[in-house]
Amino acid sequence: MVAMNESARSGETTRLPRTAPELDAEAFARDLFEEVARLSPADVGVSRPAYSDTETRVLEFLRERAEEWGIAVRPDRGGNYHFALPEDMDAERFILVGSHVDSVHQGGNYDGLAGVIAGLLCLARAAVSGKRFAHPVRCVAMRAEESHWFGPCYIGSKGLTGQLTASELSAVHRGDNRTLESHMRDLDIDVDAIKAGRPLMDMASVLEYIELHIEQGPMLVEKRLPVAVVSGIRGNFRHRKITCLGEAGHSGAVPRAYRHDPVFALADLLSRLDDSWLTILQKGDDLVLTSGVVSTDQRTNSLSRIPDKVTFSFDCRSQSREVLEGMRELLMEEMQQVERARKVKFLLDDELSTAPALMSENVIQGLKTAMNRTGLEPFVMPSGGGHDAAIFANAGVPSGMIFVRNRHGSHNPEEALDIADFLLGAEVLYNHLREEQ
Amino acid sequence: MVAMNESARSGETTRLPRTAPELDAEAFARDLFEEVARLSPADVGVSRPAYSDTETRVLEFLRERAEEWGIAVRPDRGGNYHFALPEDMDAERFILVGSHVDSVHQGGNYDGLAGVIAGLLCLARAAVSGKRFAHPVRCVAMRAEESHWFGPCYIGSKGLTGQLTASELSAVHRGDNRTLESHMRDLDIDVDAIKAGRPLMDMASVLEYIELHIEQGPMLVEKRLPVAVVSGIRGNFRHRKITCLGEAGHSGAVPRAYRHDPVFALADLLSRLDDSWLTILQKGDDLVLTSGVVSTDQRTNSLSRIPDKVTFSFDCRSQSREVLEGMRELLMEEMQQVERARKVKFLLDDELSTAPALMSENVIQGLKTAMNRTGLEPFVMPSGGGHDAAIFANAGVPSGMIFVRNRHGSHNPEEALDIADFLLGAEVLYNHLREEQ
Repeated sequence: MVAMNESARSGETTRLPRTAPELDAEAFARDLFEEVARLSPADVGVSRPAYSDTETRVLEFLRERAEEWGIAVRPDRGGNYHFALPEDMDAERFILVGSHVDSVHQGGNYDGLAGVIAGLLCLARAAVSGKRFAHPVRCVAMRAEESHWFGPCYIGSKGLTGQLTASELSAVHRGDNRTLESHMRDLDIDVDAIKAGRPLMDMASVLEYIELHIEQGPMLVEKRLPVAVVSGIRGNFRHRKITCLGEAGHSGAVPRAYRHDPVFALADLLSRLDDSWLTILQKGDDLVLTSGVVSTDQRTNSLSRIPDKVTFSFDCRSQSREVLEGMRELLMEEMQQVERARKVKFLLDDELSTAPALMSENVIQGLKTAMNRTGLEPFVMPSGGGHDAAIFANAGVPSGMIFVRNRHGSHNPEEALDIADFLLGAEVLYNHLREEQ
Repeated sequence: MVAMNESARSGETTRLPRTAPELDAEAFARDLFEEVARLSPADVGVSRPAYSDTETRVLEFLRERAEEWGIAVRPDRGGNYHFALPEDMDAERFILVGSHVDSVHQGGNYDGLAGVIAGLLCLARAAVSGKRFAHPVRCVAMRAEESHWFGPCYIGSKGLTGQLTASELSAVHRGDNRTLESHMRDLDIDVDAIKAGRPLMDMASVLEYIELHIEQGPMLVEKRLPVAVVSGIRGNFRHRKITCLGEAGHSGAVPRAYRHDPVFALADLLSRLDDSWLTILQKGDDLVLTSGVVSTDQRTNSLSRIPDKVTFSFDCRSQSREVLEGMRELLMEEMQQVERARKVKFLLDDELSTAPALMSENVIQGLKTAMNRTGLEPFVMPSGGGHDAAIFANAGVPSGMIFVRNRHGSHNPEEALDIADFLLGAEVLYNHLREEQ
């Protein structure tokens, strides 16, 4: 399909003859996805632990395949692998594309890997056809994006951009309890530079960072669209455990006016926040709210007892720093109102938070143009999950993302990416790299 | 206090001379409460299991004390003990007062026992003073009211009134797994009559059933009232477990419009029901709603995951059969609306239900008059918990209840009944029995 689209549109490009040979993109992608899955088996799905031998074997496999296609390969001081056309490997300034190769335990094969294979596909197409990009292009296959293994996330890109903290370096692996630093030293990673906050790569040399990734939500499935451009990566503030304290009582014997019912209080709070959520969306702002963990006290609760407390988690995400700040205030205000109205008390644990990362307007425009060139109606949407692109954006690199339709979310063996959708997303990336402006 | 009140008002009564001797009511009550507690120790609080040796020992102790005060005692074919002035024991028609002597495991000393001791106090006062009641009075100390031991509740009064079912008789004890029938046969209870649905006592001989009981809620504490007359015993319909099924997803990646969030659905449902609850109360109807057990799936829930389901219990109680029926319909309607609005599905387990039992208007009037005579402003309130009085009312016996103020609810070691409040409640009972009309 890619070959056909390309030849159909080749009149629009001027640099290369129509007769340039083409790669069988589908066969190329299938081979890489399948072989990498074979290298990272799990009881169900795949497991590619951060900084593991499996992760290294996958990177070495990608190196072998890339070299077969005439692509140059070079590991960096963070253990990540860089791929480029041989003449571009030492370019002073380049567009960086890529993603991560690690996965969660018993995850799916596409989260992360799709972005790396899309970058390699662009390089292989250029290598085979002799066509060249508007700017030198480098593809990076990073390690350790998933928080699953050590707790901190985006470890690879934080190291590259000089953003990894001392406390993150001392985080311990869930399997062997050894520190992240220790795992990094095993791989000869330049921990001293990382500790000093020195980027492992000169950020000034990176013209743009572009990451293709599977969508982790249902938006593209629901909208029947194969590809989207990402406007920004939602930031969040979160509480693992908020406790609403009330007062226990006989379910039949306490009149409404004398109740201190924490469950009705929680229902009231969530309904108030839900109303505001709807209003905020209607104003055109971006917001999602989730209370994923809710429980009365499993030891004392019973059918005929007004519970004395309920605990719940709260997760608030938005692309907009202002919306996050507004919701943080609203949460406190609504809690106070519910406390007064229902004679309960809310106790909050420490807040966790991540700032939102907006993608570059220029890059978004470029990717929208590339969607048009690919014959797709441009569609722009926020990213709910966090990505390495947020780390590059926060390091000052103009960044962009391409989302590809995917069923069943991510971080589970049921991730489902149609190869046709993947190839369309990779085509958008290729068209952007060829005609970046 | 009782002696003083009585002598202060003795001019109002005509049958007996002012000089009749009086009992030290407080000493009488303290002795019985303390000795019974001593006979039924637990790690914390008291334990008087239904149909246990402890329960029998307590009944035998009450027999001894009653006989010391010149009161006749007679066990019935259900293992319950009846107390009366000797000349009233064989009366054809009588007013029955009393309650139960069993308790939950590690319960408080007053739930049930207070009603028995109040009845005995009235009999002892009459025996000592020579004063007589308007009608013959019998006090019954029943066994096995608490559902804690076998599952079914009101076993003693159901047996007396011919309402115990075959399935209740085959319920097994939580401790030894032996059936209720087997436990009853050990005590020579007439199981054959019970199985045949024959009342162990001729209900036509019972003019009224009056039960004094501690309040199990905070109403009297909040209203600073020592005693109330009960208008009726709330019936209920209940679900142990309702499941709200939604669809799991990444907390950041699924826009509001594509969510199937069971927790926000539950919040919506409870808020809708809460609004209706308020409206129903404002109309003057009686209702309490409780969701005592709430939980997302503890194995799969997490901070950043829209949960796929939440389970919750639902307990709805009212004195009014119409309100219960209306709420049952409303629950179904609101669930359907929430299902449509939020793309979730509610699954209900089998409903448990108990019909409400209204107290007799005549008896309520009589008890209000007795409150007046005791120098108390009559106050009438519903009972949230179930009581033996509901069983007598459902057997066609005009029934009534006196609630006495109690702190910290019931079924726990912290039940707290002031002896002064108990004596005021017993005084209302005594005044009613002396001048029932």
